Amino acid sequence: MKIGFIGLGRMGTGMAGSLLNAQYDVIVYNRSPQKLAPLVARGAKAAPSIAEASRAEIVITMLADDAAVESAVLGDEGVLRHLPTHAIHISSSTISVGLAEKLTGAHANASQRFVAAPVFGRPDVAAVGRLFVVAAGEKRAVEAASPIFDAIGQKTFVVSDTPKLASLVKLSGNFLIASMIESLGEAIALIAKGGVDREQYVEILTSTLFSAPVYKTYGSLLASEKFAPAGFAAPLGAKDIRLLLTAAEELRVPLPLASLLRDRFLSLFAHGGDALDWSAIGGLAARDAGLARHDEK
Amino acid sequence: MKIGFIGLGRMGTGMAGSLLNAQYDVIVYNRSPQKLAPLVARGAKAAPSIAEASRAEIVITMLADDAAVESAVLGDEGVLRHLPTHAIHISSSTISVGLAEKLTGAHANASQRFVAAPVFGRPDVAAVGRLFVVAAGEKRAVEAASPIFDAIGQKTFVVSDTPKLASLVKLSGNFLIASMIESLGEAIALIAKGGVDREQYVEILTSTLFSAPVYKTYGSLLASEKFAPAGFAAPLGAKDIRLLLTAAEELRVPLPLASLLRDRFLSLFAHGGDALDWSAIGGLAARDAGLARHDEK
Amino acid sequence: MKIGFIGLGRMGTGMAGSLLNAQYDVIVYNRSPQKLAPLVARGAKAAPSIAEASRAEIVITMLADDAAVESAVLGDEGVLRHLPTHAIHISSSTISVGLAEKLTGAHANASQRFVAAPVFGRPDVAAVGRLFVVAAGEKRAVEAASPIFDAIGQKTFVVSDTPKLASLVKLSGNFLIASMIESLGEAIALIAKGGVDREQYVEILTSTLFSAPVYKTYGSLLASEKFAPAGFAAPLGAKDIRLLLTAAEELRVPLPLASLLRDRFLSLFAHGGDALDWSAIGGLAARDAGLARHDEK
Amino acid sequence: MKIGFIGLGRMGTGMAGSLLNAQYDVIVYNRSPQKLAPLVARGAKAAPSIAEASRAEIVITMLADDAAVESAVLGDEGVLRHLPTHAIHISSSTISVGLAEKLTGAHANASQRFVAAPVFGRPDVAAVGRLFVVAAGEKRAVEAASPIFDAIGQKTFVVSDTPKLASLVKLSGNFLIASMIESLGEAIALIAKGGVDREQYVEILTSTLFSAPVYKTYGSLLASEKFAPAGFAAPLGAKDIRLLLTAAEELRVPLPLASLLRDRFLSLFAHGGDALDWSAIGGLAARDAGLARHDEK
Repeated sequence: MKIGFIGLGRMGTGMAGSLLNAQYDVIVYNRSPQKLAPLVARGAKAAPSIAEASRAEIVITMLADDAAVESAVLGDEGVLRHLPTHAIHISSSTISVGLAEKLTGAHANASQRFVAAPVFGRPDVAAVGRLFVVAAGEKRAVEAASPIFDAIGQKTFVVSDTPKLASLVKLSGNFLIASMIESLGEAIALIAKGGVDREQYVEILTSTLFSAPVYKTYGSLLASEKFAPAGFAAPLGAKDIRLLLTAAEELRVPLPLASLLRDRFLSLFAHGGDALDWSAIGGLAARDAGLARHDEK
Repeated sequence: MKIGFIGLGRMGTGMAGSLLNAQYDVIVYNRSPQKLAPLVARGAKAAPSIAEASRAEIVITMLADDAAVESAVLGDEGVLRHLPTHAIHISSSTISVGLAEKLTGAHANASQRFVAAPVFGRPDVAAVGRLFVVAAGEKRAVEAASPIFDAIGQKTFVVSDTPKLASLVKLSGNFLIASMIESLGEAIALIAKGGVDREQYVEILTSTLFSAPVYKTYGSLLASEKFAPAGFAAPLGAKDIRLLLTAAEELRVPLPLASLLRDRFLSLFAHGGDALDWSAIGGLAARDAGLARHDEK
Repeated sequence: MKIGFIGLGRMGTGMAGSLLNAQYDVIVYNRSPQKLAPLVARGAKAAPSIAEASRAEIVITMLADDAAVESAVLGDEGVLRHLPTHAIHISSSTISVGLAEKLTGAHANASQRFVAAPVFGRPDVAAVGRLFVVAAGEKRAVEAASPIFDAIGQKTFVVSDTPKLASLVKLSGNFLIASMIESLGEAIALIAKGGVDREQYVEILTSTLFSAPVYKTYGSLLASEKFAPAGFAAPLGAKDIRLLLTAAEELRVPLPLASLLRDRFLSLFAHGGDALDWSAIGGLAARDAGLARHDEK
Repeated sequence: MKIGFIGLGRMGTGMAGSLLNAQYDVIVYNRSPQKLAPLVARGAKAAPSIAEASRAEIVITMLADDAAVESAVLGDEGVLRHLPTHAIHISSSTISVGLAEKLTGAHANASQRFVAAPVFGRPDVAAVGRLFVVAAGEKRAVEAASPIFDAIGQKTFVVSDTPKLASLVKLSGNFLIASMIESLGEAIALIAKGGVDREQYVEILTSTLFSAPVYKTYGSLLASEKFAPAGFAAPLGAKDIRLLLTAAEELRVPLPLASLLRDRFLSLFAHGGDALDWSAIGGLAARDAGLARHDEK
C-alpha cells in the first residue's frame, strides 16, 4: 500500500521511519527539503510537492499547528484537491476541534475519508514505533487505517466515529500535563521557601505516590529550573491550552484550572519566556513567592 | 524496646501491627477501647490511659487531626507529662506546621525529643508495612527512630532537622493529589460533554502518560462518580488544604490552585457532600458544565 | 453636513435622533426596515441600502457585533466601497481590537478616514444625547467628527490617534462592570447565607461607599435576582469579555478576574441562562454556596 | 450620660471628638497616653486604665484588630470585668465574626449588653461625625445606643439582632473595595500596555460610569502608582480578607474573587510590600504583564 507522509519534524520523521520499518511504500514531503534525505536513505520516495504526496491510498499529515494543516490540506495545491476518491487522510497533528470538524466536512464533500489520529509520546518514542494513538472517524475508515496505527504505535484507542473528538482527547491530555506542572510548581515554591531541598522533594514524590514517568520528567525540570533548551516550546503549550479553552467555550464547560494555565503562559511570555520549555510556567509560583531563581542567586 | 502507640484508626492499626510483626514490645491506646482487642490478640499490651502508653522509650501518635493530637499530647494527662526524659515522640499524624512547631518546643522544654514522621499510603499499605515515611527532627533522634520507620515502611526520607518541614511535605503531597483530582475532573467534564465515554477516557489516560497508581485510583472514582463510601473523607481533605494554605500564608507563598481546591470543598459541603470521598470535588466541574450525574439520568 | 447612520437598534435610534435634534441631515439604514419609520417621521431620510447611506461626508455604524460590522463595512456592497474619498467612518459599535485595526487599514487603503468612537451609556441616555464618547483616530479626523460627538454625547474623551485603543478602553469598561457584578454577587451570597437581608444590604452599600449609579442598577438586580428580561443580554456580555481576553492575549496581559468572569458566563450558559441579563452571573456565587434562588423557595 | 472610649487611633480620635461635640461626658483611654491630650483639651477626661474607662453607661472600643480587642475586653483588667451590669459595650473595630460571637456570649454571661457597630469612612470623615454605622445587637440595646450613632455618623443601618452580622457586613464592604482595586488594576495593566495614558483612563472612568468617590480615590492611587505612605496599610487589608474567608468557610460559601485577593496580598508581602497602602495589590497585574513601574522607568 502506498502512503503519503507530509510533515517531517522530529515526530513526523519518527513516524515515517516506523512505516518504512513496517515495509510500507512511503512517499514523503516536507516544506524544507533537507529533512527528506535521511528517510530517502531508508527507502522512502521524496515528493516534490504536497500534490505528489497526496496521490496515495492513505496520506498522513503531521504538522505544527492549525495554520500549517489548513494550508497543506485546504490550500490551492493541497491534499484535498489531489487525494483520490475514497482514499483516507489521517491527521496526526494536534489541531483544534473546529479544524477537525472542518476537515471532516471537506473530505466528505470530496468523497474522501478522514480520520483524526493524534498521538501521545515524544520524538524518541515515535522513532521506535511506540506511540499511543487516539483515533476517531467513520468505522470502516478507522479499520482500514489500523495497520498504519499498529506500525507507528504500541496501542490504539478508538474513541468515536466523530473525528473531532480525538482532537478533544489529545488537547485534554496536554491540559493534564500542564496542570501537573502547575501543581508541582506551586508545591515546590512552598516547600523550597520553607527550607526543603527541591531535588530531594521531587525524588520523594516520584518514588512514592507520583511514579508516572511524566512526573519524573517534569519534576526534574522544575527542581533544577532548567527550562532551556525547550523540549516542548512554551508557545506550543500555550496554543494547546488556547485550543482547549476554545473547545470548552463551544461546549460551555468552565475550566478554572485551564484559565489559570492560560494566565501563566501570558505572564511567562510577558517576561520574555517565549523560547523556554512549557514547564517554565511551573516556575512562576516561585517567582510570585519572591524566590530568586537558582541561577540568579 | 518498648513502644507506646496512640491512635488505632485504620492507619494506626496497620502500623502498630507492623511493629508487632517486627517483634517490638508495643503498648497500645485508643479512645474507643474496642479497637484494642485485635492487636492484643497479636501480642500487644493494652494501655488503660495515654499516660500508661507514654511510659516508653518511643511513643507514636497517629490521630485524626490537630485537636486530637493537641489533646493527647499537651492535655492534662497527656504524652508530654508522662514521656520519660530523652524519650522520643514520633508524630505520624498529618498535622499543621504550626502544631509541629509547638510540639517541637514543648518536648524540648521537657527534655524530650520530637520527630515528625507523617506517612504516605492507604490503610492496606499500612497493614503490610509498606508505607513511605517522611521524617524530620534532630539528627540523633531520627537515627534512633530509624528501625521503627523500617518496620512500618518500605522507605524513609529524612527531609530536615526541623520537624515542621515533614508536615509541610506531607501536606503538599495531599495538595498534589487533590490537584490531580481537580484536573481530571475538568478534563472529564469536557470530554464527557463532548461525547467521549468517561470510562474509556480514563483507561486511555492511565495506560499511557498517567500510569501512576494514584491516577488509576482516582480516575476510576471520577469516571464512575462513585464517591461513597468515602476512602478518605472530604472534610479531611478540606482540612489538609486549609492547613496547607495556612502554612503558605505564614511563608507568603500564593497558591492559586490550592485556593481553587479550597473553594471546591466549600461548594461540595454547601451542597451536602460532607460524607463523600474527597474525590467528589472532581465532580464539580461536570456540575458547573450542566452535566447531570450518572445516577441522576 | 450629510450623515449616514447604519444600525437602528435601541442605541442607534437614540443616537440618530440626537443628530436630528442637532439639525443634521441624516440618512438612516437598518436591515429590518420597520425601524426606520420613527426617525423618518422626525425628519430623517430612509436609505434603501448600505451603499445609499454611505454616500455621505460622515457615516456612523452602530451594530451588534464584529460580524455585523464586518459585513456592513467590508461586504460586497458595504460602506468601504461606497464611502467617498476623505469621508469619515465613525464606528460606535463595541468591536474587537483586531477588527478596529483591520478597519483602520482598509479605510486608509481606500483613502478614507476611520475613527473608532464607542460610547458608554444605556438606551435612555442615548435618547437624550447624554452619552460619553471615547474616540480614537487620526487627529484631524477626530476634530472633524467632534461636532457629531457633541450632538450625541455629554462629553468626549480622545484617547489616542490609534483607533483600536478606543475599543480597548470600551471593552475594559464592560469588564469593570462585570467585575463589580461578580464582587457584589459574592458579597451577597455571603451575607445572605449569614442571615442579612439582601435588599437592605444593597441599600447600605449604595447609600455609603458605593454610590455610583452602576452599583445601584446592578445591586438592585442582584438583590432581587430579577435577571429577566435582559437589559444587556448575557451573550453580549460574554462576547465582550471574550474580546477583552483576546486583546489581553495579544498584549500578553494575564487577567485572572477576567478569566473568572469568562467561566461564570460559561456556567450560566451551561445551565440555560442565555436569555438572561448579564448580571445573572452575579447569582452564581449564591448557587455555589447552596442557596436556593428567591423564586425557588 | 457618661461614655468610655477606648482606642484613640485616627478613627477613634475623630469619633471621640464627635461625642464631645455632642456634649457627652467622655472618658478616654489609649495605650500610648500621648494621644489623650488633644481630647482632654477639648473637654474629655483621661482614664489611667481600661478599668477606669469601663465604669460608664456605654463603653466604645475602636482598636486595630482582634488581638487588641480581645486583650482590652477579655483581659484581666479589661472591659468585661469592670463594665457595670446592664451597661453597653459598643465595638466599632473591624473584628472577626468569631470574636463578635465570643463577645456576645461573654457580655451576656456578665449581664451586660453588646452591640457590634463597625463604621464605614476614613479618618477625615470620622473627624466631622459623618461616618456610616452598621449596627447589630439586641433591639433595646441598639435603641439605647442610637444617640451615640447619631453623634458619630450621618446614618445608621441596623442589620440584625445578632451582633456578628454587623462584622460580616463590614468585612464584605472591605472585600468590595479590594475587588474594585483588583479590577481597576487589571484594567489599567491592559490599557497601559496597549498604550493608553493611565491618568486619562482613570479620569474617563470616574467621570462616566464609575463616579463613586471610592473609584476616584483608588483610581488615582493606581494611575500614579503612589502606594506610600499607606492610607490603609496592606497588612490590615490582608487581615480583613482573611477574616472574610474564615467567615465564608464557616458558612460554606466559596468566594473565588476573595481567594484571588488573598493571593495578591501574599505576593505583595513576598516582594516586600508590607509598608504599602493596600491598593498596591492593584499594581500586581501590571507586574505580571511585564510592565515596569512608573518610577522604575
